[in-house]
Amino acid sequence: MRTLNVRLARHEYRIFVGEGLIGNAGPLLAGCGFQTAPLVITNNTVLRLHGAALLKSLQKSFGPVEIIRIGDGERFKNHGTLLRIYRGMFHAHADRRSWILAFGGGVVGDIAGFAAATFMRGIPYAMAPTTLLSQVDSSIGGKVGINVAQGKNLIGAFHQPSAVLSDIAVLKTLPGRELASGLYEVLKCGAIRSKPLLRYLETRLSRILNCQSEAIQHIVVSAARIKADVVAADERETGLRMILNYGHTIGHAFEAATDYRKFKHGEAVAWGMVAALTYGRDLGLLAPGESERIIRLIRGVGRLPSLHGISAEKAWGALTRDKKFRAGDIRMVFLRKPGEAEIRTGIDAASLRGFLKRFLAANGR
Amino acid sequence: MRTLNVRLARHEYRIFVGEGLIGNAGPLLAGCGFQTAPLVITNNTVLRLHGAALLKSLQKSFGPVEIIRIGDGERFKNHGTLLRIYRGMFHAHADRRSWILAFGGGVVGDIAGFAAATFMRGIPYAMAPTTLLSQVDSSIGGKVGINVAQGKNLIGAFHQPSAVLSDIAVLKTLPGRELASGLYEVLKCGAIRSKPLLRYLETRLSRILNCQSEAIQHIVVSAARIKADVVAADERETGLRMILNYGHTIGHAFEAATDYRKFKHGEAVAWGMVAALTYGRDLGLLAPGESERIIRLIRGVGRLPSLHGISAEKAWGALTRDKKFRAGDIRMVFLRKPGEAEIRTGIDAASLRGFLKRFLAANGR
Repeated sequence: MRTLNVRLARHEYRIFVGEGLIGNAGPLLAGCGFQTAPLVITNNTVLRLHGAALLKSLQKSFGPVEIIRIGDGERFKNHGTLLRIYRGMFHAHADRRSWILAFGGGVVGDIAGFAAATFMRGIPYAMAPTTLLSQVDSSIGGKVGINVAQGKNLIGAFHQPSAVLSDIAVLKTLPGRELASGLYEVLKCGAIRSKPLLRYLETRLSRILNCQSEAIQHIVVSAARIKADVVAADERETGLRMILNYGHTIGHAFEAATDYRKFKHGEAVAWGMVAALTYGRDLGLLAPGESERIIRLIRGVGRLPSLHGISAEKAWGALTRDKKFRAGDIRMVFLRKPGEAEIRTGIDAASLRGFLKRFLAANGR
Repeated sequence: MRTLNVRLARHEYRIFVGEGLIGNAGPLLAGCGFQTAPLVITNNTVLRLHGAALLKSLQKSFGPVEIIRIGDGERFKNHGTLLRIYRGMFHAHADRRSWILAFGGGVVGDIAGFAAATFMRGIPYAMAPTTLLSQVDSSIGGKVGINVAQGKNLIGAFHQPSAVLSDIAVLKTLPGRELASGLYEVLKCGAIRSKPLLRYLETRLSRILNCQSEAIQHIVVSAARIKADVVAADERETGLRMILNYGHTIGHAFEAATDYRKFKHGEAVAWGMVAALTYGRDLGLLAPGESERIIRLIRGVGRLPSLHGISAEKAWGALTRDKKFRAGDIRMVFLRKPGEAEIRTGIDAASLRGFLKRFLAANGR
C-alpha cells in the first residue's frame, strides 16, 4: 500500500492506494480519525461486486452501517437524486457529527461529496473510488456537484474529502472501455506534468491494459500525486489548476455536442487531447514529432469512438457555453513539450473555429 | 455612514451602515471591487418599497441589471425556490464571473447566498439587508441555506459575502413586530458580549422603537461589530460562535413546536432568552436581579405572543432534534453576568425537561 499526503491551506488528508483496501476500510478509516459508522452512499452495481468486503470491515470497526443507494450512471447525478440522498440521511437520523463514505465511481463521489458539502452546512466525507477514472481524477481536488439541464457540474462546491481509499483490486472488474477512459486521464497527467509517467505508459501499456497490479498501482499513485500537487497549489482553480483541463475544452464540446451519450468522459478528453496536440502543432507550439508521439500513445490505449456526425457548429456552440470558456478571452491549455503545459490566453476565435471544423472533417470517418 | 471591516482567515469584507445607502449602492459596490452588473435576487415587497433607488444607482454604475424575484416569506426558503433561482441565473446567462446581490431580509439573504455558494461551485455575492434582523444577524457570518421538511436551515453552506450594505432608512418601512424581532437579536448581542449595548438599549429604547436614525445606526453598528468579531474568531462554529445561539436552543424548540407559524424568529429567541435567564437563575448561574433586569428589557421591546397551547412534550421533542443539540451531551449558552456568556456542557436532561414544563405552564396564559 502507498500513502499520499495531500496538504491544503486549511485541510490535510491521506490517499491510500493498494490492493484489497476495501476489505480493510474500517481500520484505515478509523486511523483517519473517524469514530462512528458512516452513511455509505453507493449504487447496486458496486454493492453487488464489492459491497460485502467493505461492509464487513466497516461493521467490525464501527458497528451497523446505513446504506443509501442511488442509480448507476451519469443521468442520476441530478437534483432528484440529491434530494433522495438528503431524505435517506434524515431517515437515518444523520446530524452534524455524521459522515459519508462515497463508494463508487465519479457520479457517486461527486453527488455524495456535494451532499456532504451541504448537509447541515457541511459534514466530513471519505471516498472509496471504484473506477480508475475516479481514483486518479474526481476523488482528488474536492470538486463536488451535480448536473443540471443547462450542463454538467454547474451546481456544486469545493469540499475536500477526509480520506481516499483507492483499492486497485476493484479495477479488475471494470469493463475495458471504463479502464481506458481512466487511462486517458492518467495520460493527461503525464502529458501536462511528467515525462517519466508518459514513458512509463509507453513501455508498460500492455501490462496496464491487463490490469497487472504493480503497473496499475504505479500509475494510480503517479497520477494522483500529480493531481494532488496541482490542486494543493491552487485549490480554488484560479490559476495553475487550469492545466488539469488539458484536453477538456474541446473534449467537453464533443461530449455536449453528442448529448453526453456517445463518449465516456475519458474518451472525450482523449479526443480533446488529440485535438489540442494537433492544434498546438499547427500553431507551432509543440514539435510535430512530440505531438505525434503522444497521439500514438493515446491511440494505443484503445479505439476511440469516431467523431462522425458531430456538427462543427454544434461543437462550437457547446465550446462557447463552457464555464471554462471566457468570452472575449479564450484560454486553452497546450503542451510546450511532453510533461510541460502552459495556459495560453487570447486564442483567436476564428482560427480555433476553423481548426475545429477541419479536425472534425478529418476524424469524422 | 459607518464602515466595519470583517477579517476572516481567507476573506475580508466591509459592512457599511448608514442612511440612504441603497441609493448609493452602485458606487459603494464598485468600491468593493465589483465591475459588472449583479443578478439582483429580491421579492416584490422589497422591490416595490425600495427597488427604484437601488436599481437606478446600480444601472448608473454597471449598466442593465437582471432581477430574479422570489416569494416573500419563510415558506419560500426551500428547494423549489432555489431551483427557480438557478433557472433565472442560467436564463440571464450567468457564469463564473457573475455575482449576486441579495436584496431583502433573511430569507432572501440565506437562499441567494446559498445559490451563490453552489452556482458553478461558488460565485461572489453582496447583501443589502432590508430588515433589522438581517442587518444585525443573518447578513453576518456567512451561514446560508434553505429549509427542508425535516427542519430549518438543514441544507446549506458557509459562504461569506463580499460586501454588506445596511441601509437604516429602509427600516422605517418595517412593521413594528418585524422591528422588535430584530431588536431581540440586538439585545442578545448585548447580553452575551456587551454591557454598554445593554445599557444603551435600556436608556434609548423609545428612540429606537421610533426608528430615530442615530439610535438605530448605533445599535446596528454595535450588534454587527459583536457578531462579526465572534464569527471572525470562529468562522465554522466549532467553539466560541456557539454563544450566538444564546436563547436559540429553547427558542428554536418553541418555533418548531408551533410549526414556525406563531412566532417571528426574533420573538422565539426572545422567549428562549427569557427561559435561559430564568433557568440560569434557577441553577444559580446568574444573580436574580441581573436576570430580572434583562427580562424587563426584553419585555419592554414589545408584547411577545403567548406560549399558550405549546405542549411541553412537543417542545422537548423539537429540542432534542435540534442540530445544535448534542445527544448525550446537552450544551446550552448561559449568562455569567450581563455581557458575558458561557457555554455549559453536560446539562441534565431531566432537569431541563422539568424546567421547560414549568416555564411553559407559567407563561402559557
